[in-house]
Amino acid sequence: MLNAEVKRELTEILGSSYCKDDPQSLVTHSYDGTPMLQSLPELVIYPENTKQVSQVMKVLNHYKIPLIGRGSGTNLCGGTVPVEGGVVMVMHRMNQILEVDIENLTATVQPGLNTKKFSQHVEALGLFYPPDPSSMSISTLGGNIAECSGGLRGLKYGTTKDYVIGLEAVLANGEVIRTGGKLMKDVAGYDVTKLLVGSEGTLAIITEATLKLIPPPQYKKTMLAMYSDLYDAARTVSKIIESRMIPATLEFLDNATLQVVDDYAQLGLPREMEAILIIEQDGDKGSVERDIARITEICHSEQAKQVSVAGSLEEAEKLLTARRSAFTALARLKPTTILEDATVPRSKIADMVLEINRIAKKYNVQICTFGHAGDGNLHPTATTDVRDTDEIHRVEAAFAEIFEATIRLGGTITGEHGVGVVKAPFLEWKVGPAGIEIMKGIKHAFDPNNILNPGKIFAKESRKRVVIQRG
Amino acid sequence: MLNAEVKRELTEILGSSYCKDDPQSLVTHSYDGTPMLQSLPELVIYPENTKQVSQVMKVLNHYKIPLIGRGSGTNLCGGTVPVEGGVVMVMHRMNQILEVDIENLTATVQPGLNTKKFSQHVEALGLFYPPDPSSMSISTLGGNIAECSGGLRGLKYGTTKDYVIGLEAVLANGEVIRTGGKLMKDVAGYDVTKLLVGSEGTLAIITEATLKLIPPPQYKKTMLAMYSDLYDAARTVSKIIESRMIPATLEFLDNATLQVVDDYAQLGLPREMEAILIIEQDGDKGSVERDIARITEICHSEQAKQVSVAGSLEEAEKLLTARRSAFTALARLKPTTILEDATVPRSKIADMVLEINRIAKKYNVQICTFGHAGDGNLHPTATTDVRDTDEIHRVEAAFAEIFEATIRLGGTITGEHGVGVVKAPFLEWKVGPAGIEIMKGIKHAFDPNNILNPGKIFAKESRKRVVIQRG
Repeated sequence: MLNAEVKRELTEILGSSYCKDDPQSLVTHSYDGTPMLQSLPELVIYPENTKQVSQVMKVLNHYKIPLIGRGSGTNLCGGTVPVEGGVVMVMHRMNQILEVDIENLTATVQPGLNTKKFSQHVEALGLFYPPDPSSMSISTLGGNIAECSGGLRGLKYGTTKDYVIGLEAVLANGEVIRTGGKLMKDVAGYDVTKLLVGSEGTLAIITEATLKLIPPPQYKKTMLAMYSDLYDAARTVSKIIESRMIPATLEFLDNATLQVVDDYAQLGLPREMEAILIIEQDGDKGSVERDIARITEICHSEQAKQVSVAGSLEEAEKLLTARRSAFTALARLKPTTILEDATVPRSKIADMVLEINRIAKKYNVQICTFGHAGDGNLHPTATTDVRDTDEIHRVEAAFAEIFEATIRLGGTITGEHGVGVVKAPFLEWKVGPAGIEIMKGIKHAFDPNNILNPGKIFAKESRKRVVIQRG
Repeated sequence: MLNAEVKRELTEILGSSYCKDDPQSLVTHSYDGTPMLQSLPELVIYPENTKQVSQVMKVLNHYKIPLIGRGSGTNLCGGTVPVEGGVVMVMHRMNQILEVDIENLTATVQPGLNTKKFSQHVEALGLFYPPDPSSMSISTLGGNIAECSGGLRGLKYGTTKDYVIGLEAVLANGEVIRTGGKLMKDVAGYDVTKLLVGSEGTLAIITEATLKLIPPPQYKKTMLAMYSDLYDAARTVSKIIESRMIPATLEFLDNATLQVVDDYAQLGLPREMEAILIIEQDGDKGSVERDIARITEICHSEQAKQVSVAGSLEEAEKLLTARRSAFTALARLKPTTILEDATVPRSKIADMVLEINRIAKKYNVQICTFGHAGDGNLHPTATTDVRDTDEIHRVEAAFAEIFEATIRLGGTITGEHGVGVVKAPFLEWKVGPAGIEIMKGIKHAFDPNNILNPGKIFAKESRKRVVIQRG
């Protein structure tokens, strides 16, 4: 119980300006990017350094009070909603780039640093940090690490996990550990670094990260291919990969998404197309030109109705920005937007889209689909209205059936959004009861009192999603 | 205790031909690639499939008898020496390529499959599996996964961990789990896949792995640069990386190693050089030619005495084979060869080599150094004689001081060989007491009875290295 004594101890550590329990602060931190989910914290705190985080943790562990680490709350799995109350710890004050090491091609950063700001900073130094979640203009690196964020470049460059090589983290008991380092190889014991990436704030609080940087590609080219048949688009994806090419980006938008995005971004896309692919290749000029030429051929041979290569960087950027804004564009349609994250082996993309369409029809709900086709990572997105209880139930039933189809096709319930609250009831479908038990064992080893982001990843039978109205 | 009843139960599962306790079998499996370490198992078994592994595990967990998984035993950390007795389980019968999936660019394999055989198989299909540990002509993929093996291509392509995307594994209680899949992205719960890679057989027995394949580079070129000053070579490494180039291979050999390798491989190298670099770049022809030209310039500007680009694939292969044979070549010098695995940030390569040389002189022992300079992964190698007890003690003291220097320079005690028995006493230097506690917690969650490869990773004060004579 967060009583006056606990508040006094926390205020002593943080100072009264960084320890807030006024209604505005509590309400502002009662939800995140996830629709239909809200729960009030008892306190919101803003630590300045690792020492404060450690001191806070000791107090909360002693009193067994939940601690929810939070960056900008852009996640879509309810990852930062304080479903069991407690303290929300916002990392925005710890937002420094501590070092960019040019000799080792690493950067050391604090968790509250904005992703885009960091990305641009290293770009100005002639370096490249590939992870580019669609929320990057708002999100923090700490949040990206906690959720193992992906993005449009995952196919060729991997996700956040592939770039985190060292961490400083505070354990539930307040102890500070350091993992990895400025090291391209490290097998000293279990890989705690990679275990913490994507652990959704349930194992430790990340207070510093060392990230791997790479030389940027020297050239890139973006193209668009449009299809009147979904299978043609999906076959194009398979053919490109089979032809031993890994594009930097290989994005898919279905007809419904296409229309909404075109309304929003005014691209003048042919709205009758069943599917479009946005394809980007980067690297050496010669190989990019060759790949784009070969991909163009493949698109044509797979019955693309229209294929065009962006004539300028601006035109290319416009296409990718349109794709990045798919969520925002869809959110304009109806008051409630539920963006999901089903991932299948990339050879199953067409089957999965057909399944999604079949299921949407069965439950009479509107689901648009777009996503990272090259990764097999699709984002079926329902546009609905929380006030229509009957429709919301149908949407939820449809998504459950979509996850079932994902698993059936050899996929997973989440490719980049995380489990959080939203996917917790489905986790066992992917990892099995023995997998859940092992994960619970890991959780217990790190956090025996279950104070770190409780209620996430592991489902309780009794959980109810709290539905609030939006828009 | 492995009594007659346990043997009877195991024989029932495996059949009597695959359950051996004759002296030859026991002695053959009492040691591995690590010098000065030997301990007899009580039984050697050869399972045929996952079901048998699961049944065996249930029996051994019930009786609390150690189980040591083993591929070809090429590791250099004592990882497969049964230091607490028990059963050695050799995975050689489970050696099939179950599938190469061309559409998804994945392969599914059994753990006993030989690394080189697999590598050549996918190469013939026009695909590429980059991890190339020097032991690859003998090692197994299961062993590579258990130790997270590196190799010469780690700098550009990463290590085994970066290519394992799904696993089937048998837990200590006999339950079978499946992690990941043919998925480029999967954030469904904790990353048990990456946790098992490099866990040295202490958390679970891997019975199947899904590996990521990539398109092969189309072109490669190999070059040699020779230096009369160590710092010039080290500066060359830094300058290459700073110039935003990541070569496929960037290997370093010091003078002592150079001489031995030249004796062995008859390359006609100038034996007075203090250091040589073997550099390979691969990729698109245009970018390879450009990188090799720029690297040549850097070598010259950093005072290389001689720079030569291999004129043919055969010549290039000869250079790399010479490097790969460094261990074998050094092993000819004296009866006992101790190959170590210190890794530092790559900017600290020169400092580390100087430290190694200083320490070797201080303890009056012979240590040659070679390794993956681009990774900062050095292999200081002592050539000695176990029968010379005094010298062996000095060698051990020298290595302890080398590990201390590694940590001081921001490095790690092992970059690719693993902790095993050999590095266990030093693990705390890298990960700290809190790090050890967390790792022990993870171990306990997977293996509460401590039957899986006991005595590895975590040091007991009481352990003694059993010194036997060789050569």
